[in-house]
Amino acid sequence: MAVTLAELARRVGGQVRGDPGVEIRAVAPLDRAGPGEIAHLSDRRYRALVAETRAAAVVLVAEDAGAFKGTALIHPNPSLAFARIAAFLHPAPAVAPGRHPTAFVEDGARVADSARIGAYAVIEREATVEDGASIGPGCYVGQGARVGARTCLVAQVYVGARCEIGTDCLLQPGAVIGADGFGFAKDGERWIKVPQLGRVIVGDDVEIGANTTVDRGTLDDTVIARGVKLDNLIQIAHNVRVGEHTIMAACVGIAGSTSIGSRCAFGGQVGIAGHLDIADDVQVLGTSLVSASIPKPGVYSSALKAEPADEWRRTAARLRQLDELARRLREAEEEIRKLKGE
Amino acid sequence: MAVTLAELARRVGGQVRGDPGVEIRAVAPLDRAGPGEIAHLSDRRYRALVAETRAAAVVLVAEDAGAFKGTALIHPNPSLAFARIAAFLHPAPAVAPGRHPTAFVEDGARVADSARIGAYAVIEREATVEDGASIGPGCYVGQGARVGARTCLVAQVYVGARCEIGTDCLLQPGAVIGADGFGFAKDGERWIKVPQLGRVIVGDDVEIGANTTVDRGTLDDTVIARGVKLDNLIQIAHNVRVGEHTIMAACVGIAGSTSIGSRCAFGGQVGIAGHLDIADDVQVLGTSLVSASIPKPGVYSSALKAEPADEWRRTAARLRQLDELARRLREAEEEIRKLKGE
Amino acid sequence: MAVTLAELARRVGGQVRGDPGVEIRAVAPLDRAGPGEIAHLSDRRYRALVAETRAAAVVLVAEDAGAFKGTALIHPNPSLAFARIAAFLHPAPAVAPGRHPTAFVEDGARVADSARIGAYAVIEREATVEDGASIGPGCYVGQGARVGARTCLVAQVYVGARCEIGTDCLLQPGAVIGADGFGFAKDGERWIKVPQLGRVIVGDDVEIGANTTVDRGTLDDTVIARGVKLDNLIQIAHNVRVGEHTIMAACVGIAGSTSIGSRCAFGGQVGIAGHLDIADDVQVLGTSLVSASIPKPGVYSSALKAEPADEWRRTAARLRQLDELARRLREAEEEIRKLKGE
Repeated sequence: MAVTLAELARRVGGQVRGDPGVEIRAVAPLDRAGPGEIAHLSDRRYRALVAETRAAAVVLVAEDAGAFKGTALIHPNPSLAFARIAAFLHPAPAVAPGRHPTAFVEDGARVADSARIGAYAVIEREATVEDGASIGPGCYVGQGARVGARTCLVAQVYVGARCEIGTDCLLQPGAVIGADGFGFAKDGERWIKVPQLGRVIVGDDVEIGANTTVDRGTLDDTVIARGVKLDNLIQIAHNVRVGEHTIMAACVGIAGSTSIGSRCAFGGQVGIAGHLDIADDVQVLGTSLVSASIPKPGVYSSALKAEPADEWRRTAARLRQLDELARRLREAEEEIRKLKGE
Repeated sequence: MAVTLAELARRVGGQVRGDPGVEIRAVAPLDRAGPGEIAHLSDRRYRALVAETRAAAVVLVAEDAGAFKGTALIHPNPSLAFARIAAFLHPAPAVAPGRHPTAFVEDGARVADSARIGAYAVIEREATVEDGASIGPGCYVGQGARVGARTCLVAQVYVGARCEIGTDCLLQPGAVIGADGFGFAKDGERWIKVPQLGRVIVGDDVEIGANTTVDRGTLDDTVIARGVKLDNLIQIAHNVRVGEHTIMAACVGIAGSTSIGSRCAFGGQVGIAGHLDIADDVQVLGTSLVSASIPKPGVYSSALKAEPADEWRRTAARLRQLDELARRLREAEEEIRKLKGE
Repeated sequence: MAVTLAELARRVGGQVRGDPGVEIRAVAPLDRAGPGEIAHLSDRRYRALVAETRAAAVVLVAEDAGAFKGTALIHPNPSLAFARIAAFLHPAPAVAPGRHPTAFVEDGARVADSARIGAYAVIEREATVEDGASIGPGCYVGQGARVGARTCLVAQVYVGARCEIGTDCLLQPGAVIGADGFGFAKDGERWIKVPQLGRVIVGDDVEIGANTTVDRGTLDDTVIARGVKLDNLIQIAHNVRVGEHTIMAACVGIAGSTSIGSRCAFGGQVGIAGHLDIADDVQVLGTSLVSASIPKPGVYSSALKAEPADEWRRTAARLRQLDELARRLREAEEEIRKLKGE
C-alpha cells in the first residue's frame, strides 16, 4: 500500500510542508528511514537525528520544524499522528472467522459466527465470545465468562469462570484473568482458604500484558475500568479497582482492596499496599512503595538511584547512624547555647 | 441451599444472638448483604458499615457485638468462621471424574479413576495422578511426576518431570513447578549450564499462585512444606526450603539455597538473597530486602514510603551528603570542645 | 554408566590425586555423596563438609586440597569441571525426532525431520524449526518465526510472529517472546496504541527463564545477544538490547530502548529505567534501581537491607528530617564561628 502524504494528513491531521504528493509506504525510525518511508521526532533528545534522516517525510511539531529541511507533516502531537499512521500503513491481519478444527467449544457456549477460535483453545459452557473477537491458540475461556466484540486474546490466555472482558481489548500471551484472590483466615498455625466468589470485570479498550495476573474478588468484583493499559508481569489483587485510562509499567504489584483513580501512571516495579485510596491523576515513579492513601494528584516517589557500591555502602551505613547523629547534633546545639551564656 | 443460622453455628462454632432460625442462603459483604445473606466484620475499620447493614446476620467478635443490633453470630475468629460458612454455602463444583476426549495420557501413566484430566492436558509416562485430583485444561504433568489426592491444577500449569505435589493442593493458572534452576559456571566469558538434577517437592495443603515459578534443585530438592501459601508471580529458586504454613504475598523473590522457617509471612515484592537461614515466625514487610540470615523471630523492614517527588528528591540528595554531614558534625563537636577549653 | 576418575579428568581437565581407577556413576552434594559418587567444593564456606564427605572423589582447587584426605580431582575451576561432569554423567534425554500426533503444524511451516514437535504444539505457516530443535507440549511458534538448531522450548512457550531464536537455546516453560511492546500515544485522556512492528532476535546459546517476557520492538528489534542467561519472571521491554554473556537473576525489569553491555550481571529484582546506556561489565546488586546511564564498568547498588522494623521505622522517620538536620548543622557551625570570633 502506498498513499500520499496529503492523504495521511487528511487522516491524522496536521499541515504538510513540502511535497504533499510524496508517496509513503511504511513507517521507520529516523536513522533507518529511506525513500517511501515516514519517520517522526517524538522527543527533542533525538533532534540531532532529524537533520540527517533520509526519510521521505518526518512528523514533528512546529517548534522543531526548523531542524529539518525536507518534507514534513507538522502536527501538534507527533507521537499520536505517528501511531495512527503506523496503524493505517501496517494494519494488524484481519481476524479470519471460524473455529480451528482442534479447538474445543463446549455445548452451550455462545460464539459469534464472526469470531475466531484458535488451535487448542477451550471455550466452556455458557461462555460468550462476541462479534469479531479472537481467541488465540491455547486460550481458556471459563464457564459463563464473556469476551467482548473485537477483543483479542493473543495466545495461552486464561479467563476464569464468570469473568467479563469488554470490547476492543487486547490480552497478551500468558495473561491470567480471574485466578483466585489470595485470601486466608488463620486457624492456629494453619491458613484456611477464604472462597473467592467475585469476578474480574474488565472494561472496553483495555490492554493487559504478557504474564500479568488479575485476581477475582472475594465477594465483590475486581474492576479494571475502560481504557486502562497494563504492561507485563503486573499483579492486581482481589477487589482492586483501577480507574479509567490509568497506565502501569511492568512488574507493578497492587495489593488487595485498593482503589486507584483515573488517569494515574505508575512506573515499573511500583508497589501499592492494600486497602488504600489513590486519587485521580497520581503519578508514582518506578520502584516506589505507596503504603498510605494518596488523596491529591501529583508525582510521588521513594526511589533510590544506584551509585558505585562502595559509596552506597558508606551511605547505607551512615543511614543506620542517623538517630545517633541527630542526638549528637542536639547535644552540640545545647553546648553552643551554654557557651553563649543562654 | 438454605440453612438456619443455628445450623451454621453448629458447623463453625460461635453463639447465636437473636433469631437462630433465620435462613441463610449466601455470603455477602456488609454493604451489599440483604435478606438471606450473612456478612462479617473482619476488621474494626469497617465498624461503621455494620450499623447500617441489611444482612440477615453478621459474624463478629463479642467486643463488636454492641455496634450491631440485628441477628449475630458471635465468634472469636469471624474471618475463619466466615471462610468456613462461605465454603459451606458456595462449595466448589465437584470434580467430574474422567478424561476429556482431547487429553493426552501417555502409556504407563497412573491416573486414578476418580481423577479428572481436562482438555488438552498432557500426562507423561510414569506420572501419577491420585484419587480425586483435577488436572485442568492445558496442564502438563511430566514424566514420573506425582499429583496427590484431591489436588487441583486449575489450567495451563506445568509440573516438571519427577516433581511431587502433595494432597489437597491448589495450583493456579500458569504456575510453573520444576523449571530448571538458574545455575551456571563461568568458562572465560561464557556461562556453562550446571545440570539441574533435583526435584521440587510440594507438601500437602499448599496453594501456589498464578504464574508463580518454583525451580527444581541442582542436586538436592527444592522443598515447599505443608500448608505453605504462595501468591502470584513469586519466584522460588533452586534448593530453597520453605517451612510449614509460611505465607508470601505476590511478587516475592527468594534466591537459591535459602532456607525459610515455618509460619513466616512476607509482604509483596520482598526479596530474600541466596544461601541464608531465616528463622521461624519471621515477618518481612513489603518491598524489603533481606540480605543476611535472620536468626530470631520478629518483624523486619527496609521499606521506604513514597512522598511528593520534589520532597523526596531533596531527601535523596541529602542522603548522598550524609558522610559529609557526619564529618562536619564531628568537626563542630571538636570546635565546641576547644571553645570549652577541654 | 560408570567411568573412572581418570576418564573424567581426561574429559574436563585437572589432576587426579589418589586412585585414578575409582569408578564414578553419579554426581552428589558433599553431605550426601557416597561410593560411586563425585562431589565438589564450590565455595570455601563449605570447607567443613569436605572433611567428612563419603564421596568417592571430590573436585576442588589446589588451595583446598589439604582439607580433604581422599581421592580428589584438583581443578582450577571446580564449578566448571563439576558442571561438565554432571552433564556427562546425567545427559538430558535425547530429543526423539518426530511430530506428536496431536501437534498442529500449519502448511508451509518448515520443520526439520530431526526436530521434535510435542503434544498440542502449534507451528504457524512460514515458521522454521531447525535440525534437532525441540518444541515442547503446548508451545506456540508464530508465523514466520525461526527456532534454531538444537534449541529447546520446554513447554507452554510463546514465540511470536517473525521472532528469531538462535541455536542451542533453552526456553523454560511459560516464557513469552515477542508479545507487543508497551507503547501508547496520548490523545486527550485516552491512550492510543502504537503498533509494535519490530521483532525479537535472540542469539545462540541463550537461556530464558520460566514466565520471563521479552517484548518485540516498536520499529527496530529487541535483541538478546549470544550467551545471555535470563532467570525467571524477568521483563525485557521493547527495543532493549542485551549484550553477549550478560546474566540476570529473577524478577529484573528493563524498560524500553535501554542498551545493556556485554558480560553484565544483575541481581534479583533490579530495575533499569528506559533509554539508558549501560556499559560492558557492569554489576548491579539485587533490588537496586538504575535510573541514569552507566558509562563505566563497576559494581553499583542502591539496596537497603532489612532490620528490625522498629529500628527501621526510626531511621526512615529521621530520613525525612535530613533536610532540617542539615540546616541545623549549618547554623551550629555558624554559631561556633561567631563564638570563636571569626
